Amino acid sequence: MLLKALREEVLEANLELVRRGVVVFTFGNVSGISREEGLVAIKPSGVPYDELTVEQIVVTDLDANIRDTNLRPSSDLATHLELYKAFENIGGVAHTHSEFATAWAQARRPIPCFGTTHADYFHGDVPVTPDMTAEEIAGDYEKATGEVIVRTFSDRDPDATPGVLVASHGPFCWGRDAMDAVHNAVILDYIARMATHTVAANAQTGPVANALLDKHFFRKHGPGSYYGQTRR
Amino acid sequence: MLLKALREEVLEANLELVRRGVVVFTFGNVSGISREEGLVAIKPSGVPYDELTVEQIVVTDLDANIRDTNLRPSSDLATHLELYKAFENIGGVAHTHSEFATAWAQARRPIPCFGTTHADYFHGDVPVTPDMTAEEIAGDYEKATGEVIVRTFSDRDPDATPGVLVASHGPFCWGRDAMDAVHNAVILDYIARMATHTVAANAQTGPVANALLDKHFFRKHGPGSYYGQTRR
Amino acid sequence: MLLKALREEVLEANLELVRRGVVVFTFGNVSGISREEGLVAIKPSGVPYDELTVEQIVVTDLDANIRDTNLRPSSDLATHLELYKAFENIGGVAHTHSEFATAWAQARRPIPCFGTTHADYFHGDVPVTPDMTAEEIAGDYEKATGEVIVRTFSDRDPDATPGVLVASHGPFCWGRDAMDAVHNAVILDYIARMATHTVAANAQTGPVANALLDKHFFRKHGPGSYYGQTRR
Amino acid sequence: MLLKALREEVLEANLELVRRGVVVFTFGNVSGISREEGLVAIKPSGVPYDELTVEQIVVTDLDANIRDTNLRPSSDLATHLELYKAFENIGGVAHTHSEFATAWAQARRPIPCFGTTHADYFHGDVPVTPDMTAEEIAGDYEKATGEVIVRTFSDRDPDATPGVLVASHGPFCWGRDAMDAVHNAVILDYIARMATHTVAANAQTGPVANALLDKHFFRKHGPGSYYGQTRR
Repeated sequence: MLLKALREEVLEANLELVRRGVVVFTFGNVSGISREEGLVAIKPSGVPYDELTVEQIVVTDLDANIRDTNLRPSSDLATHLELYKAFENIGGVAHTHSEFATAWAQARRPIPCFGTTHADYFHGDVPVTPDMTAEEIAGDYEKATGEVIVRTFSDRDPDATPGVLVASHGPFCWGRDAMDAVHNAVILDYIARMATHTVAANAQTGPVANALLDKHFFRKHGPGSYYGQTRR
Repeated sequence: MLLKALREEVLEANLELVRRGVVVFTFGNVSGISREEGLVAIKPSGVPYDELTVEQIVVTDLDANIRDTNLRPSSDLATHLELYKAFENIGGVAHTHSEFATAWAQARRPIPCFGTTHADYFHGDVPVTPDMTAEEIAGDYEKATGEVIVRTFSDRDPDATPGVLVASHGPFCWGRDAMDAVHNAVILDYIARMATHTVAANAQTGPVANALLDKHFFRKHGPGSYYGQTRR
Repeated sequence: MLLKALREEVLEANLELVRRGVVVFTFGNVSGISREEGLVAIKPSGVPYDELTVEQIVVTDLDANIRDTNLRPSSDLATHLELYKAFENIGGVAHTHSEFATAWAQARRPIPCFGTTHADYFHGDVPVTPDMTAEEIAGDYEKATGEVIVRTFSDRDPDATPGVLVASHGPFCWGRDAMDAVHNAVILDYIARMATHTVAANAQTGPVANALLDKHFFRKHGPGSYYGQTRR
Repeated sequence: MLLKALREEVLEANLELVRRGVVVFTFGNVSGISREEGLVAIKPSGVPYDELTVEQIVVTDLDANIRDTNLRPSSDLATHLELYKAFENIGGVAHTHSEFATAWAQARRPIPCFGTTHADYFHGDVPVTPDMTAEEIAGDYEKATGEVIVRTFSDRDPDATPGVLVASHGPFCWGRDAMDAVHNAVILDYIARMATHTVAANAQTGPVANALLDKHFFRKHGPGSYYGQTRR
């Protein structure tokens, strides 16, 4: 079997979406990439999670040519491919319709960085893409979805903001690998959930101070980080 | 036993309501129809879900004559029958008092199509029926409930809008068969849940653009659909 | 053991509170009464639910004299006793600090009858008691809590409104027996939960029409009821 | 093994955080202190809860010198130490990013004492710390977090208010021992959750009367308490 380890990881990451409660039915999909081989493994379209097997994970190249199954890939494959092509450090992509992150995407409101939970993962607000044009929607829609995400990051570092809200649609997240992308998708929904309650408790509250944003983000990321056991 | 397969499916669909968390106690009921035989199978009234057996599923004709049990059918039977008579493509009906869909029914506010999760299932807003008159309520109330739903769809295609909010009451959904009706009932509650959070995040947000609505609905429905494995 | 059957029922009803998710830690208590013997069985004070045994259920008379254990009864006993003395048809009382019913009690806002789920159980709004005076609080507080509930029902039928919100405190519910009281406590929290979402979706929504209120309440209660299997 | 009993209790208290649903992933940490030995046991940094063992619990003195493991302590250790030094009656500290308490911390709004559930545990509102200065954040940040908490309690009794909301961050709670601190952290989230719903039901609602606040707090705390079985 082609890329067995990557497919196993992608299978596991898709199942983690279910275990973490961020998908219902067949919504949501996760992929992972082998940068050396230029191949992507992704969930097949419309297969129930509890029937999903490693053989069913679809492998394609970066031009969406299917390499090793008879199944159709997730209909969002083209979006994932645009992200892999544009964001060169990422190894996995996760898309969900999770309850609260999707609600903010539907509200077309960036999630302000209201606290340190958010700042631990996202160095600033979680952006919303602009609305897609009727031409983009009518054309190669899923590819255009990837392009509008990439444009949203023209002046942002995707490694410091590992996710986005696609307007009127839902979140796409990414990470070092497929499981890390899922981790960020779960965190994003938790951040969105707390942001909803924050606004309910005080509609006028503002984002964290920049000093606190930097402190928390760089406590966990980059050369000066000191969270976890990795440096000992 | 009359219509054993249909009754088994209806039993299973009723239990799926419980598994998906959209009913409490004995609220809610699901039915399925055999169009060839003109017979409907429906949950009995007031029986706890964990005691429900296939023998207890009540079979009636379209005039509500009971055919094969000693139990009384769900008190909402007459509503189901009106829907089967008016919406000729449907094979199942599900009624719940699910938390968020019921809240929007109580708010007497149609659920705007705020995003693609909604557009994947409902081609536009989820409508609310007009209030029923005192005469309708005092008369054959459950039949009148069906009639007010049918009137609400006088200028809508029930196949493109597989559910409705009965004002001050709750949702009725339908589908290809009983299980599909339950699927739509679960989705409707999820859509209503996200709509609640969407409004909380941004009270001024509007519905999706028509281009996006059409794209998502027809990606999953009709001759041009390309979601899932069915076309391979 | 005195009143073994009643104590078993009260134990089971207390455990049902936990299973239905309407209590945390040791909050909440349920009692039942034997009208013939004039004796009440109630949860002991502060005992964790998972350690509770039938022997620990405390039996008292209507003057709070303990009859058959060494444990102290729930500190809310005196409130329960006032309700048994004033509401002669009731056989059980349940008190919780459930999430949404308590929130409306804290908001000191009666829960309007927004829909038929509510109307199936409560014939009109769920009332809030007036604030208690400093004298009532400083005196025999739990007894005074019962008295303020009874005063709130001076012009209401407790059989048609099987629960109340004690201002700044939480709900007390009652019913035919201890388990029925718990059932009403669970329903009340569900009603309060949906009312919260209803107001969020439409702050201006009003209560159901009287015709619908009567229809649903009397569909389930009284001589003309036709819900469930009981009349066949 | 040094302080085996304390480490076991701290392990158990950390796991209780997970069981009670107030942490996701590795967020959150609990410690306990041996006042006689001047030693603190705390969760190691970034270790997943389901892999945590008693050997991994880190023991340090009050100057943060590690005494009996190779693992790094929670990055919030310095905050815990400040609390142990300033609040001499406490035996345990719990920090979470629980959903609702964190939301109020992010809203920078003290939680008003809206009802008796709150008054049973906190004798008045749950305070929010002032924002930390850029200097405090850039310096010994975790120690400064402890200091800003202690300053917030310069005119409050920490034994009557067993927790605080650190602005734009989240709650810290304390108690007699590690498990009691966790208990207070769970209660605080429940209080914050109900406060959110209370404000949604009635934005103008005020806190409980002082008589009721005193009654409930002192019913459970201090020489006149009469809740539970302890006095028999």
